[in-house]
Amino acid sequence: MKLENLVGERFKERPGDCSIDSHALMIRGGYIKYVGSGIYSSLLPLKRITRKIEQIIREEMDGIGGQEVQFPVVMPASLWQASGRYESIGSELVRFTDRGKNTLVLGMTHEEAAVQLVQEYAAGYTKYPFMIYQIQTKFRDEARPRGGLIRVREFTMKDAYSFHTSQKDLEDYYEKCLHAYERIFKKAGIPEVISVASDSGMMGGKLSHEFMLLTQVGEDTLALCESCGYKANMEAAESIIENIRSEEIKELELTHTPNMHTIEEVCLFLGSSPEKSCKAVVYQRNEDDSLVVVFVRGDLEINETKLKNFLGCELHTALLTENSGLIAGFIGPLELKGDHTVLFDNSLKNADNLICGGNLTDYHYKGLNMTRDVSTAEYHDFAKIRENNCCPGCGKKTIKLSRGIEVGNIFQLGTKYTKAMHMTYLDHNKDKQYPLMGCYGIGIGRLAASVCEAHHDEFGPIWPISIAPWQVHLCAIRADIDEVKKCADSIYEELVESRVEVIYDDRQVSAGVMFSDADLLGSPLRVIISPKNMKENCCEICARDKSIMEKVPLSQASAAVTELLVNMLKK
Amino acid sequence: MKLENLVGERFKERPGDCSIDSHALMIRGGYIKYVGSGIYSSLLPLKRITRKIEQIIREEMDGIGGQEVQFPVVMPASLWQASGRYESIGSELVRFTDRGKNTLVLGMTHEEAAVQLVQEYAAGYTKYPFMIYQIQTKFRDEARPRGGLIRVREFTMKDAYSFHTSQKDLEDYYEKCLHAYERIFKKAGIPEVISVASDSGMMGGKLSHEFMLLTQVGEDTLALCESCGYKANMEAAESIIENIRSEEIKELELTHTPNMHTIEEVCLFLGSSPEKSCKAVVYQRNEDDSLVVVFVRGDLEINETKLKNFLGCELHTALLTENSGLIAGFIGPLELKGDHTVLFDNSLKNADNLICGGNLTDYHYKGLNMTRDVSTAEYHDFAKIRENNCCPGCGKKTIKLSRGIEVGNIFQLGTKYTKAMHMTYLDHNKDKQYPLMGCYGIGIGRLAASVCEAHHDEFGPIWPISIAPWQVHLCAIRADIDEVKKCADSIYEELVESRVEVIYDDRQVSAGVMFSDADLLGSPLRVIISPKNMKENCCEICARDKSIMEKVPLSQASAAVTELLVNMLKK
Repeated sequence: MKLENLVGERFKERPGDCSIDSHALMIRGGYIKYVGSGIYSSLLPLKRITRKIEQIIREEMDGIGGQEVQFPVVMPASLWQASGRYESIGSELVRFTDRGKNTLVLGMTHEEAAVQLVQEYAAGYTKYPFMIYQIQTKFRDEARPRGGLIRVREFTMKDAYSFHTSQKDLEDYYEKCLHAYERIFKKAGIPEVISVASDSGMMGGKLSHEFMLLTQVGEDTLALCESCGYKANMEAAESIIENIRSEEIKELELTHTPNMHTIEEVCLFLGSSPEKSCKAVVYQRNEDDSLVVVFVRGDLEINETKLKNFLGCELHTALLTENSGLIAGFIGPLELKGDHTVLFDNSLKNADNLICGGNLTDYHYKGLNMTRDVSTAEYHDFAKIRENNCCPGCGKKTIKLSRGIEVGNIFQLGTKYTKAMHMTYLDHNKDKQYPLMGCYGIGIGRLAASVCEAHHDEFGPIWPISIAPWQVHLCAIRADIDEVKKCADSIYEELVESRVEVIYDDRQVSAGVMFSDADLLGSPLRVIISPKNMKENCCEICARDKSIMEKVPLSQASAAVTELLVNMLKK
Repeated sequence: MKLENLVGERFKERPGDCSIDSHALMIRGGYIKYVGSGIYSSLLPLKRITRKIEQIIREEMDGIGGQEVQFPVVMPASLWQASGRYESIGSELVRFTDRGKNTLVLGMTHEEAAVQLVQEYAAGYTKYPFMIYQIQTKFRDEARPRGGLIRVREFTMKDAYSFHTSQKDLEDYYEKCLHAYERIFKKAGIPEVISVASDSGMMGGKLSHEFMLLTQVGEDTLALCESCGYKANMEAAESIIENIRSEEIKELELTHTPNMHTIEEVCLFLGSSPEKSCKAVVYQRNEDDSLVVVFVRGDLEINETKLKNFLGCELHTALLTENSGLIAGFIGPLELKGDHTVLFDNSLKNADNLICGGNLTDYHYKGLNMTRDVSTAEYHDFAKIRENNCCPGCGKKTIKLSRGIEVGNIFQLGTKYTKAMHMTYLDHNKDKQYPLMGCYGIGIGRLAASVCEAHHDEFGPIWPISIAPWQVHLCAIRADIDEVKKCADSIYEELVESRVEVIYDDRQVSAGVMFSDADLLGSPLRVIISPKNMKENCCEICARDKSIMEKVPLSQASAAVTELLVNMLKK
């Protein structure tokens, strides 16, 4: 098509509200338009990209036996009540009532709908395994939409659901899907995406992986080990701390520590360090505001997701009142008053000679020995893993933290949904069993933005040929000159004839405007017809990523382009 | 793929809640599954159909210069407030608040979003004309969902919006789109769809057409003239009644008509007929319950849509209270008390010797002469057109009423939305102008259901080759016999190799079960491998519509199928 007719604005200035490059470029290139918080319209260039991405995904999903279906965007609340998620999910889930006062929800994921769809069909073991998937709009009322298409409220997602009669079968399929995902990201132009073990969060189930594009602008943090290849999301990465018994074991001693409120102040005052302290972090359960006190080594932080998963509920930082029995700044594990949940992080195991709160205003203990003084403590993993921590994979102190964008995820859900929704099948022995489920998601828009994030320069996206909106950007410089226009027109027609996807710029604008628009649209190949080149009877062909830059006789232009494209598509 | 693996239930019994055939067949064939009132999930067979329909539509929209975009399903209320529709549309429009207490709406149509998307881009006349379209999920909180996919609350729709700088340009494009629609319906297998002039309803604008599939189960009524080809929706069809002046003009006379409440009773009592009476029908405006009295000839009925459009507001049947000044059963145009809106239908123009209410309990007038006695009356078209009425096209008494399903619509919106939303452009003279808009919709699911409604028998749908979920249904009867299975397997592979879309039934079930499943899936061609045929070294090829039934040597089976398909696709 002609660039002249392309609906959408392109401009040079980076919008002020864009913190990441892909967001800025997709606004500047006329790919998306802001409609409301976390809500965008897509224009033709993005629509062409997402259609190609969808086709790549569809082929891979069909390739592993998937069947495309479509679930509703709007669902009766009863479906979500059946799984228990109507209550357990917070305000991310949009709830509203229809004209008949029935409560409906907007789908943010479709496990319930998947179970509802196949519940009667899959009543016998011979129907298993199977996988159904859809590519459909979803809405999740995110608290903080950001980064353009990276974190939105309305998004298009491929979500797949598999059903199995054994854990082994689920695991085999899960593995298959993991490889299909690797192929999808490779085909979409970001083979560098890695899969990391992750926390299952609100989805439930045991094992899950996230597919991560490593980039400084990512909002997830990952723990990676170069030594053994261990890869996990922060929420799933076990923090391993080994405390070595001190040579001289001190006695417990209550000490006056007036006007000190942070663990750092107290340590400084008592000539110790945060590593030798036992810090209290206090939360409240959202449901009833009951208190949860977590003790952790003073130099570490709590990973709230780990804590939430352990407790199975939502939490918030506590607001301590006087009758809680807890004295902020002086909370310690000894003689703690009140009926609170008290938890200990693994980092305190075997620790000694610690400083901790005295549960008394302006007093701390010195010489706390966990084994000796808190003998009943049970330890769990609540701490955030840190750089150079022990690797949970190989035990070496090799953990590095990286940031990444989650472009996909897969979950082994087990029987969480089928049990809750009473979906059963009869096995070989005619016994009722709950099928196991897996679920597998990819955000289409976020994937497009991630590819842009991974492949761009300051002038625009550098789209991989597989998902580029157009393969070729044809520029006719000085299209007001008859010969230029005629020549460009005929090359355009030849390319269209050869089924090349070409966007043709024959506007009477400067070469500078043309090239910056071409940069913003990011077609892999650019063909330039200009009076200067025409004198040599040539045109210029160059690649957006600068890997190609050559002059080709005009008569061979379209053949040369086609050949280059074939080679690029092969890769 | 193998039928054995196809997710979805197929069964024989017509579900009790299905009033129309396409609904019953799409449930029975495993195409759709009920999720909630007017909300369905689609299974693979329907998904394959709708994907093909979408592709047909996409090609035609691209063919008339359309650019595919995507608008959000969820939009800020402010967008709809800007156009005024947030207030003017009733409970069909779903409104809800997000976690930040902002009001959002679910898109039921996207004029506002279209204007928002292009408002800045199209600020100069050189950008015009252009058309953008999307294929996206919509939600309309219908009061009475019915007929499976015919009238749902959640639906997928292609909606297109064109922008123009003159009425002439809009009209030219409208015409183009009308022809593109005709091609779409033809390609989708229902060339019999007709376009009829229609009422623009809540969309606003002047001219609009609906595309109608004529069928007894349709919920719209159309007025058609075989003589001149006039075609209009009931709402748009003018009711033309000519009253001939009576030979003997009677005097006005107040008459005692005790205990008579219907016009029929009164006419009978006074020896007249409803054609010679003036009937009052009373409504109230939804906004303030103010009364609207419409007088119409006693044998005719009011078309409420015509009345609503005339008044520009929503109405309901009036509940008359004592202080309204109106006496139910005795309302007439003379000495009517109270400050009500009083309207006269065209059917009363020049009428004489009428009976009408006396505005007095138990009294009617005889001898009402409209011209003489109600000289100030203004007449408009509010009556429903009837069979054998005058055709507004040719004037002959040839009007026939038919029922139809609306499968698409096109509207000339004019400047309704651009004015309301302050979208302007600079014309040649640098003067600000409002662009004109057209909009063009097709419901994808309803189109699929309509094709099924138009093409089915009692056993299942008869899908046109262009949108059939699979082109070929391959049955291996007695697949437990090794030779049968091997033979069918190899034909299956050959067909797949030739890129034929084939669904393969090699289950060990009876021929009866196989055939009824094949009927329900409605593939245009069926290939049957059976022990009996194999004895003759043949297979059977037949068409779902019974137009083909032949035996073909096994060695030529796949070639014969391919040839038949090529011919079918050519048509």
